[in-house]
Amino acid sequence: MKKVTEDYKRRVKELYEKANIVLSDSELENIDFADFGLDNIEKEALNLVVYINNERYCAKEMVLLPNQTCPEHLHPDLENKEGKQETFRCRWGKVYLYVEGEELKPDEISVTLPQENNQYYTAGKEFVLLPGEQYTINPKTKHWFQAGPEGAVISEFSSPSYDEYDIFTNPNVKREVRDR
Amino acid sequence: MKKVTEDYKRRVKELYEKANIVLSDSELENIDFADFGLDNIEKEALNLVVYINNERYCAKEMVLLPNQTCPEHLHPDLENKEGKQETFRCRWGKVYLYVEGEELKPDEISVTLPQENNQYYTAGKEFVLLPGEQYTINPKTKHWFQAGPEGAVISEFSSPSYDEYDIFTNPNVKREVRDR
Ligand SMILES: [Zn+2]
Ligand SMILES: [Zn+2]
Repeated sequence: MKKVTEDYKRRVKELYEKANIVLSDSELENIDFADFGLDNIEKEALNLVVYINNERYCAKEMVLLPNQTCPEHLHPDLENKEGKQETFRCRWGKVYLYVEGEELKPDEISVTLPQENNQYYTAGKEFVLLPGEQYTINPKTKHWFQAGPEGAVISEFSSPSYDEYDIFTNPNVKREVRDR
Repeated sequence: MKKVTEDYKRRVKELYEKANIVLSDSELENIDFADFGLDNIEKEALNLVVYINNERYCAKEMVLLPNQTCPEHLHPDLENKEGKQETFRCRWGKVYLYVEGEELKPDEISVTLPQENNQYYTAGKEFVLLPGEQYTINPKTKHWFQAGPEGAVISEFSSPSYDEYDIFTNPNVKREVRDR
């Protein structure tokens, strides 16, 4: 992971604060500013705190900066384990979520794709989540999501996370895994 | 369940608002004001919204009014299913959580037991949770919890809920189950 600037960290923490999410000191110290090795952190990244990830369930609190995108990926079945199922609940701001099932037509969706890597976005079924709204993504289903113009804070409730096995559409992604 | 007063509902909703928890209209309409059939709702109850409860994981947002207590219970193993494991994360206010493992000495803990049913509280290992703090309770482990003087808002992340199988220490508890 490239060095993340203090300004970037400040902007992420400000969004947790705006959403009135209280984090412990050690959680604040250990926010995962994941740039997926794409060197495009202002546009493609995901910022998160893992509250709990055990053998049975997982919960995270995620932040996207304004118009920032979490790159397209899916959660495959693993040996003896069904792929991760996840529920995204918008807590603050606005999230545009795209799920496999409709062809992605860049001119017809509500957001602009990250220009540098737009060929690696394919899922086109759009869901808009405002605070208090949520959507559950089935295993093995491609998805990506982008924050609205003010950013977004999103709770994720899910089956256990094994981030190292996530399959990204963009072959250049290198996920430095911190979930265990 | 006895009829819950409008004033009671208003006080619960106020705590969600104080914690800046945004609920959808249908969630607000369907808050579960569980009195456990004890006719002692001001002192013993649990108010909750189930965000998601599927075959793999569960997430709820719970409210306790000031000094209100969720009665002692445990989550047993079920046929082919390990008992429910749950992580409580305090979002707002203060929670006193008591877990099996130390004898309960009513004069030595931080809270006052609900007088009417104090014989049905036995778990005595105390944990105090402030906003941003959390604790994970293992299956088959007795636990109960009480809010501090301002009440509390608590997120629960867990394995699936099967509330109908919960075992309460107080044999008079009748849980009207709403989790599925
Ligand atoms: Zn995902
Ligand atoms: Zn419990």
